[in-house]
Amino acid sequence: MNREDCEALDREDPLRPFRERFELPAGLIYLDGNSLGALPRATAARLADVTRREWGQDLIGSWNRNGWVDIPQRVGDKIGRLIGAAPGQTVAADSTSINVYKALSAALQLQPQRRVIVSERGNFPTDLYIAEGLIAQLGVGHELRLIDSPEDLPAALDADVAVVMLTHVNYRSGRLWDMAATTQTVHEAAALMLWDLAHSAGAVPLAVDEAGADFAVGCGYKYLNGGPGAPAFLYVAQRHQQAATPLSGWFGHASPFAFEPAYRPAEGVARWLCGTPSVLAMSALEVGVDLLLEASMTQLREKSIRLTHLFERRVDQSLGEYGFDIASPRDPARRGSQFSLRHEQAWPIMQALIANGVIGDVRAPDVLRFGFTPLYIGYREVWDAVDILGRVMRDGLWCRPEYQEMLAVT
Amino acid sequence: MNREDCEALDREDPLRPFRERFELPAGLIYLDGNSLGALPRATAARLADVTRREWGQDLIGSWNRNGWVDIPQRVGDKIGRLIGAAPGQTVAADSTSINVYKALSAALQLQPQRRVIVSERGNFPTDLYIAEGLIAQLGVGHELRLIDSPEDLPAALDADVAVVMLTHVNYRSGRLWDMAATTQTVHEAAALMLWDLAHSAGAVPLAVDEAGADFAVGCGYKYLNGGPGAPAFLYVAQRHQQAATPLSGWFGHASPFAFEPAYRPAEGVARWLCGTPSVLAMSALEVGVDLLLEASMTQLREKSIRLTHLFERRVDQSLGEYGFDIASPRDPARRGSQFSLRHEQAWPIMQALIANGVIGDVRAPDVLRFGFTPLYIGYREVWDAVDILGRVMRDGLWCRPEYQEMLAVT
Repeated sequence: MNREDCEALDREDPLRPFRERFELPAGLIYLDGNSLGALPRATAARLADVTRREWGQDLIGSWNRNGWVDIPQRVGDKIGRLIGAAPGQTVAADSTSINVYKALSAALQLQPQRRVIVSERGNFPTDLYIAEGLIAQLGVGHELRLIDSPEDLPAALDADVAVVMLTHVNYRSGRLWDMAATTQTVHEAAALMLWDLAHSAGAVPLAVDEAGADFAVGCGYKYLNGGPGAPAFLYVAQRHQQAATPLSGWFGHASPFAFEPAYRPAEGVARWLCGTPSVLAMSALEVGVDLLLEASMTQLREKSIRLTHLFERRVDQSLGEYGFDIASPRDPARRGSQFSLRHEQAWPIMQALIANGVIGDVRAPDVLRFGFTPLYIGYREVWDAVDILGRVMRDGLWCRPEYQEMLAVT
Repeated sequence: MNREDCEALDREDPLRPFRERFELPAGLIYLDGNSLGALPRATAARLADVTRREWGQDLIGSWNRNGWVDIPQRVGDKIGRLIGAAPGQTVAADSTSINVYKALSAALQLQPQRRVIVSERGNFPTDLYIAEGLIAQLGVGHELRLIDSPEDLPAALDADVAVVMLTHVNYRSGRLWDMAATTQTVHEAAALMLWDLAHSAGAVPLAVDEAGADFAVGCGYKYLNGGPGAPAFLYVAQRHQQAATPLSGWFGHASPFAFEPAYRPAEGVARWLCGTPSVLAMSALEVGVDLLLEASMTQLREKSIRLTHLFERRVDQSLGEYGFDIASPRDPARRGSQFSLRHEQAWPIMQALIANGVIGDVRAPDVLRFGFTPLYIGYREVWDAVDILGRVMRDGLWCRPEYQEMLAVT
């Protein structure tokens, strides 16, 4: 396989037309869509219309006329289609952190005899921080029990476990949990299952209903291409929607615009809304989600696997002498749409790579992370990215003093 | 005083130039800026730049290069200037509801021996809903004690009161609490004071530091003109910033990008952040706040009083026969930048008024609410609005069947 073969793959790629639907800087190889998805071309126009016409001209009337009032449910149901959730179970709302808080609160309330939240030490930190904050707030002896690897899960599941919170695709390694099997294991221990789909939604096929997930949360600004800090989403399986949310804001009221002094929760997933949603942020998110809904998730997954596999092979073939370790599962079926390397000089290496037109990111202390978003990344780009990484190493470009400093941001 | 006098007042109005800084539909009299502020002209261009250049071109690098990572504090400090808060105590974040939750949680935690939250029955409902949800969640016998009018406050303040939560300007009547005196009364009872400034920030002069407020929250989409569902703000007086927040998300971590598995709260007001902020929504909010910072708050308040007073006099003079009651304080010093009427046919009357080019809103069951935003509303508009309301009543326009139905949205 050579560069021309990659170009041929790009020409034959059924997803290739989607590349033109994104605005990407010419010449840049953007392998960080798992941190911040690229800008869909349609977004700027949509935002201009929401701003100038809906806000500027229709003003307050837009809540009804332009459908603002239903936007969390409308966008939520669209995301539901991406994660395998039937309508009426998903809302776009708040941040992932806030939604984790809602889901964990509900899970603990649904399991009053149980005191343990199980998660992974390597979970994305905010999930763990939220669990810590909730436990401290409740102050009645709940416990966060952390496992170090998937194999440790069964042993951690005793009769005191209320809920298991796992991120489906690990943010560092890209390692993928088996959602159906894991959910079943958790349910056999009579615990509830909360999936964080931040690195999965829009990247891998998902079937939360089929897997029997109890709750799920996810991020709007990664593979959903909803824009920086886009609203997150929350899935609450229908059977749990009657639980109480402590974040009982007016958008979760049965009749928000009756302005009743007493809280009367909405039926259904609307209960899980809290405050007024940002219409601008929601509108940008909707563009990203709509775009993804045009693509075949099967094709996306196939291409994603081919992209990460190409990257893996090229690293194996051409970077062997530079001290990289593979930080992702070797089996493509067991990883998401990213591939990670380890190197003790991860920081300056990534900085040098960015300066040479390949954007990835670093997760401290030593992980170089590369995201392959099949909607807009091509095979030749993967080929070239490894070439450039090879040059960075061969020519010692990463040794420049200015590359020693870098502020990493997800 | 006649219409020409109003036009003369407009010509002499030192705030008149601000009108041109907003995009408002020609011929429309928009008296609902207290529900959704109008669109600043600069916002669309700013959003286009954030979208196309910062997100589209600079991509993930924008978190540092374009200052995304500090945006909650930067915008927060600007809002701090509008509310009389020294820097480092205000963040733009989440929704008002979520921020009420943070503040109430902190207040209860700071007052562990006390079990009562005092508020007003006529407070904006979401504040009450959030208190209810928090109390139910904690499940240890906290109580929401509601007073019916300001005179009832002293009697409600016993040794069991942890925190008093009041909305400074009442959303229905516009009635204004005396912030300094009330805060002092509350402090004398050794309770904490949480102010909701949703209808105050950007509308009336505020001095939260000077008043000794403990916490304050407020809304970005009303007088701050930040756009529909704009991020809200939270003020935490420096002396309380070490309290624990249950919403301990990664943006409140001392070092979010170190990805430490254990929560280590940030020093200062950053601790009160939770998830990733929406950069699009924050950028629009910042434009609105910047615009307001150009104006003199003294001039804004002076004009606001003259506008509401003009409306009041005109209603008194010309609408006496139509059965309206005055629902706002008669003393302009005791009301915010709105004026409200009561009428048993409030619903169809407002609908007819809107159809005739004057936008106000209804708060069920019978309040007609008119907001006067001094940045973009002029005296002649106030004159004409009452004229049109008079015509709606005189000609019975509100009796049309299509006006009996209306969905009100704040």
